[in-house]
Formats: sequence, structure tokens, C-alpha cells
Amino acid sequence: MSTLSSQPYKGTRDYYPEDKRIQNYIFSVWHKVSRLYGYEEYGAPTLEPLEAYMAKSGQELAGEQTYTFTDRGGRIVAIRPEMTPTISRMVAARRQELSYPARLYSIANFMRYERPQRGREREFWQLNVDIFGADGVAAEAEILTLADNIMKEFGAQPTDYVIRINNRKLINFMMAQYFGLDGVQGQAMMKLFDRKNKISEQDFIIQATEIFGDQADDGIKKVHALLAATSMADLPAEIRDSAAVTEIQELFTLLERAGVKSLVFDITLMRGLDYYTGMVFEVFDTHPDNNRALFGGGRYDGLVGLFGAESISAVGMAPGGTMMENFISVHNLMPKQRSTTDVYIAVLGDTVREAGKLARDLRDSGIRVELDIVGHKLDKQIKTVVKKAIPYILFIGEEEVKSEIYTIKDIAQSKEYKLNFAGIVELIKE
Amino acid sequence: MSTLSSQPYKGTRDYYPEDKRIQNYIFSVWHKVSRLYGYEEYGAPTLEPLEAYMAKSGQELAGEQTYTFTDRGGRIVAIRPEMTPTISRMVAARRQELSYPARLYSIANFMRYERPQRGREREFWQLNVDIFGADGVAAEAEILTLADNIMKEFGAQPTDYVIRINNRKLINFMMAQYFGLDGVQGQAMMKLFDRKNKISEQDFIIQATEIFGDQADDGIKKVHALLAATSMADLPAEIRDSAAVTEIQELFTLLERAGVKSLVFDITLMRGLDYYTGMVFEVFDTHPDNNRALFGGGRYDGLVGLFGAESISAVGMAPGGTMMENFISVHNLMPKQRSTTDVYIAVLGDTVREAGKLARDLRDSGIRVELDIVGHKLDKQIKTVVKKAIPYILFIGEEEVKSEIYTIKDIAQSKEYKLNFAGIVELIKE
Repeated sequence: MSTLSSQPYKGTRDYYPEDKRIQNYIFSVWHKVSRLYGYEEYGAPTLEPLEAYMAKSGQELAGEQTYTFTDRGGRIVAIRPEMTPTISRMVAARRQELSYPARLYSIANFMRYERPQRGREREFWQLNVDIFGADGVAAEAEILTLADNIMKEFGAQPTDYVIRINNRKLINFMMAQYFGLDGVQGQAMMKLFDRKNKISEQDFIIQATEIFGDQADDGIKKVHALLAATSMADLPAEIRDSAAVTEIQELFTLLERAGVKSLVFDITLMRGLDYYTGMVFEVFDTHPDNNRALFGGGRYDGLVGLFGAESISAVGMAPGGTMMENFISVHNLMPKQRSTTDVYIAVLGDTVREAGKLARDLRDSGIRVELDIVGHKLDKQIKTVVKKAIPYILFIGEEEVKSEIYTIKDIAQSKEYKLNFAGIVELIKE
Repeated sequence: MSTLSSQPYKGTRDYYPEDKRIQNYIFSVWHKVSRLYGYEEYGAPTLEPLEAYMAKSGQELAGEQTYTFTDRGGRIVAIRPEMTPTISRMVAARRQELSYPARLYSIANFMRYERPQRGREREFWQLNVDIFGADGVAAEAEILTLADNIMKEFGAQPTDYVIRINNRKLINFMMAQYFGLDGVQGQAMMKLFDRKNKISEQDFIIQATEIFGDQADDGIKKVHALLAATSMADLPAEIRDSAAVTEIQELFTLLERAGVKSLVFDITLMRGLDYYTGMVFEVFDTHPDNNRALFGGGRYDGLVGLFGAESISAVGMAPGGTMMENFISVHNLMPKQRSTTDVYIAVLGDTVREAGKLARDLRDSGIRVELDIVGHKLDKQIKTVVKKAIPYILFIGEEEVKSEIYTIKDIAQSKEYKLNFAGIVELIKE
């Protein structure tokens, strides 16, 4: 038989213990902050019918990026590329039983066909945080405060990132009332704004001119007036006085009161997904080596209604694991990682049986023990302990068995102690 | 547009917070016990090339039960139906870099086409615990002790379950030397033994007679002699004196020394997977309402070698989440679940702003707070808190804002306290 490849499937990643520790650290921050705000964890299937994404996720995500196949029962299914349709379906299925606002979060994996690049993998892990059944800006403020709190919990300073905020209602007002575009033109203009930072200003103006058609002269003037505004107060008067801007201002007031500092209003922020209906936001990394969107979210009030239940308002967001890892890495925020094992027991001489007993007793006291069961040479064992970043190594030979006093070494401090059982437990637990 | 179904994909499960809590409890026991033995967590891709399973997982698993499809690059892939080939591939990829014995575990989801039945779902969660690079019975004893420790950590008594142990080397000896069967006959007889508890004794004897062919008279006598044995000492002499039985006896000695009580030697235990090469085991539930195999494992020394690296010995096991849930449920071992939220803040009157400040201060002290941002009626809010099993509710009205003394109620104890900020933190943290 020919040899099988030892490499992971294209675009996916093997998490060896040293990689998994970092992922677990990121997950632990996500769990902690989500729970601080009263969000409860849920879990969901890996597969959904493809049509769950066709409805509102947009052509790119549902059409080109999903891992989709026909199952043995003839159903067309997709490996979930995102969580929003799934959690909306779950809320729809228990529309009557759930208490509102329902605060829900999950940490799960997703798959998308993407060109592999920095921070983008075909299989990736995401936190999803969503609040259902709260209509006002208070819900949006809570999700954004939680996003800000996650960044702070990772050790970020307010200048390390910026939260850009816009509102789909304002975008719609801008396209229809301010620019005077029809539906098709408006869609094209939104897609152009979405690409704005990826193309040259010249290309942007050329394409905008095409979209405006007959009204290009007036239209381009309006575009310039808009892009010149650096704050809400600077906006052209007809936009500034719209109901949507009032809503955004109200949101900013709540956020400032909650201590969220890294805020910017960005009228060019669109967010690609079709299901957003109100506030949209993205958290950007300001570091020159990683100047990009880290994650985003927004209000999507219509999605639950697609699954046969009365519709319900919703606000959510979804930070990704690899993006977060890059952020804490470029900002030097990665905490020192250590093994989940507390102590390694090295067996010297003919003390296997007593070493086994000691390991059992330590485990009964809640100490996490790796026990030498192979009898490798001592220098090899010490190398293993250092490599795995296990904090302590304990030696047990015939003398230790007799005296019940063991030599235990703190690797990082390079300090040796001679202690009895109780002393060892105390040393490790502190 | 037509309405989408709100039901989960066939054979999969939605985990709402009350279901996810139970799963998280099971996962927490798995994490805890695996780490007590020095095993470190890893993560792995959801997809593998189908051929990873064709090699050694057996026809049923690789052929009939996998969710398989051709990806956009023309690769034939499978949603992993088990972890053993994946972790073997990962060890092969770092064959030189890893320290041995390598102790590794993961908690992950898998998919198999199965007829949905109690404890079987098409998507399921499993713990996988494996030790690589330890040849002797000490490694088998460690995995089995860990399995036993998991059962005890769930609160099981030694009579609630039984660990059945056999050895593939003994099975091979039995088929070739004792029964005198050739390779094809031996395979057929192993499959028959594997089905023994699922068919009548009569059917078993009829099918065994067919397999023995000419030697049926002698063969059936030997089968009866074998099945009559209730312990290793009872076995026909030529089996009892084989090297394989000596190895099993050595393993039993180590396990008894480690305090593992629920042990049985079972010469009919086969385990379906092709890759096992030595000790095999299954943990059975003894409860009459759930009398079935909970999980199993064994030694599989050849698998790493399939992925282009020098082979390395391995012992592992894989308990499943739903099986475990059924076990703790029929044995009444399910602990009382509570929300991950510590306190719910109910806002009375015009104190939204102060309630927000209080929530922030509590969160800064590590207290997990759900804050009323909608202003539902108080009775509705109390109902929510009880339903979600949040232990405390705190009321903040204008009087509380003035006095900075808050009323907080312990729901389970039905006790009310009037406390300042420090008092609340102390009450909740204890």
C-alpha cells in the first residue's frame, strides 16, 4: 500500500499542544467576557441545509465559499461557513419558550473556500455572541461594549484598535435620498464603498461615475462632501439631520458612558452580509504590521423570521481565533504559556511501584502528574520536562521511598526543594 | 420565498444552554481527568482525505458510515468519523520532534451515518486519549486506569460498570493455533464473536459450524470449552499458557494495584476496528435500562507507520458524550445545573444609568452579570431568572441609588439580603 500524506487537509491546521494552549487562552478570554455579560453558551450542528445560507448570507459566502455536498439522503447540505443562520434557526424553533432578551454565545469551527492568506484559513474558529429580542440601541451598546471588553481583556490599549461604526438605515438613506440612486444603483454603490480601501481613489471615482450615469457631476460632488467629513457633525446637513444619524449619536453616548474609547463613525463601512438591517461595526487593528479588520457584527432583525417563526430583533458579532492570535502577537500581548501538567515524576532505580502510588496520591489531591513509565535516561526526561514547559520535576529513588522526603525542582526558578507529601502539594498549589 | 425548516439537520442536535451545560459538565470531567494524568490537549481538522480511513478503520466505518464528498479541488474527503487516523497522522508529521511517551487528548465532534437510536447520533462528541511510544503493559494500565478514573469522577460506583478486556494477540492465537482456522475463516469467526451478544446462541452455533466446515465437531467443542471459562484460570490449558495470556495477567496485576476494581477478562470481546494489534477493552454499563458498551479502546501499534514515518506503538480510547450523558442519567449521577451567570440586575424606575454603572463595577470584580436593558415587568423578569437558574437577583431603584444599599435575593434559599457593593461581591463569591 502506498504511504498516506502526513500533512493536514488544504487550508486547515493541526493544533499541537503548544498551538492548542494559545487557542485555549483565546477561548478562555472569550468564555470569560461573554459570561461576564450574562451570555450563555450553546452548541450547534456542523451541517445545515445549503438554503439556510442562500437566503441572506450573500452570493459570495453561500455560492462560492461553502463546502457543500449532497448527502446519502439526497439533501444538499453545507459545512457551516458562519453561525448567524444557525442560531437564528435555533431561536425560531423555540420562539415561544425562550426568555427575551436571549443572550447566547458559542465557540465553534467553520469552513470556507478562501485563498489562504495571513489570518485566513479554510477551517477557522469563531466566537459568536448574539442578543435576541432587544430593539433599542442599548442592545447594540451592550454588544459593542462586550467587543471592547474582549480587546481590553487581551491587554489591548485603546490606541491598539479602533471600532468603526455605521448603520444600514443611514446607508439606505444615503443611497436613495442623498445620492438619489435606484435599487440596482444603490446595491452597486454599496459594493463599491465596501471595496473602497482595496482600490485606488482614481478607480473608486471612475466606478462611482459609471454608477451615477446621468447624475455623475452632482453625484461625485456629493461623494466628495461625504468623504471629507471626519465626524458626524461634519456631515452634509441632510444626512446629519436624518433619524439614522440621531440613532448613531445615541449609541455613541451610551458607549462613551460605558468607557468605550476606541470609537469612530465611518460612513463608508458597509459589511458584506445581506442580512444586516441597522447598526454595523468592525474592529480594526491599528498596528502597521496587521492593519486590517479583526472582526465585526451588527443588527440583523429579519433572519429569525425566515425559519417560520414571528421575526425578532437581533444584534451579534463574531471574532475569529486566528485574527485574534495575530493581534495579540503583533502587539506583544501573548502571555507566557505553560503546560496543563503540574509535575513530572522521574523514576530513579527500582521504585516504579512506589512512584505509581505517589502519582495516585498527588492526583487524588488534584495535582496533574505525568509519570515516567518507560524509564528513559534522566537527562532525556529533564529535556522533555523543559520542552513541554511543565513547571516542576520530582525525583523518586530508593532513598526517597525510605525517607518519604522527595526532591522537587522548580524549573523556571531553578530551585530545588526537599519536601514531604504535604509540602509538595502545598508548593505546587500555591 | 418559502419558509426554511427550523429543525436541526437529520441525526444532529441543537444544544440550547440547558443542554450545553450538561455537555460542558461532561467535557469538564474529561478535561480534568485527562490532565490529572499529564495528557495535553490538541486540536485537528474536521476533514481528512477519505483514504486515511480506508486503510485500517474497517469497511463499515470507512465505506458505509462516512460523510464523504469531492471538494472543489477534486480531492475525495471525509468529515472525520473518528480521531485515531488523524492523531496518528499528526504524530507521524512530527515523528522526530515529539517527546515520548507522547500523551495527547482532544475533545471533538465526529459524523457517521448511523440509524438514529438511543445514545447514537450522526454527529457526536468524543474524548480521545492516546499515548504514543510506550510498548509495555504499563501504557495499557495507564489508559485503563484513566478510563476507570473518569467513571469514578462522574460518581460511578465499581458495580455501576464493568471493564471487559481482551487482547488481539490472544484472539489471533485462538483463531490460528487453538481453532486451527486459516486467515479467511479466522476473520469470519472474529466477526461472529463480535456479534455474539446480538444473536441467539443457536444462530451463533449454526454460523460457527459453517465457518469450521470439516472440523466442525472438534471446533464446536472447543468453542464450548472457551465460553464455559469464567476466568483466565478456567481457560483450556493451551490458551492459558500462551504468551498473550501472560501479558493480560500482568496487566490485571497492574490495574488491581492501581485500585481498578470493575475488571473482567472477556475472550469474546473483539472490537470492530481493523487497526488494533494488542489489548482491547470496552466499558459496559451494568444498569438494566442501559446495558450496553459505553466506550472502548486498545493498542494499535501500526497506524502511525501508514503516514510515512517509522511506526510507533500506541494505546488509546474514546468515550462519547451522549453515551456518558445516558450513563450519568440512568444512574442518577447528574449534578444540579446552574447558569454561568451569577446575578441578574432588575432595574426599577429611572435608574438605567446607575444600573449600568453597577453592572460594570461588578464585572470588574469578576461577577457575571445579566443586566435588564429592556424594562420588562418585574414578575416577568423574576420568571426569567428562575427559568435560567441564575442564583441571585438584585433590585436597583431610586432608593437603592441614594443609599447605595441594594436588595439581593438568593433564589434557591429564598433569602433576601440588603448589602452594599462590597457585601454583594462577597456574598456571590462565597
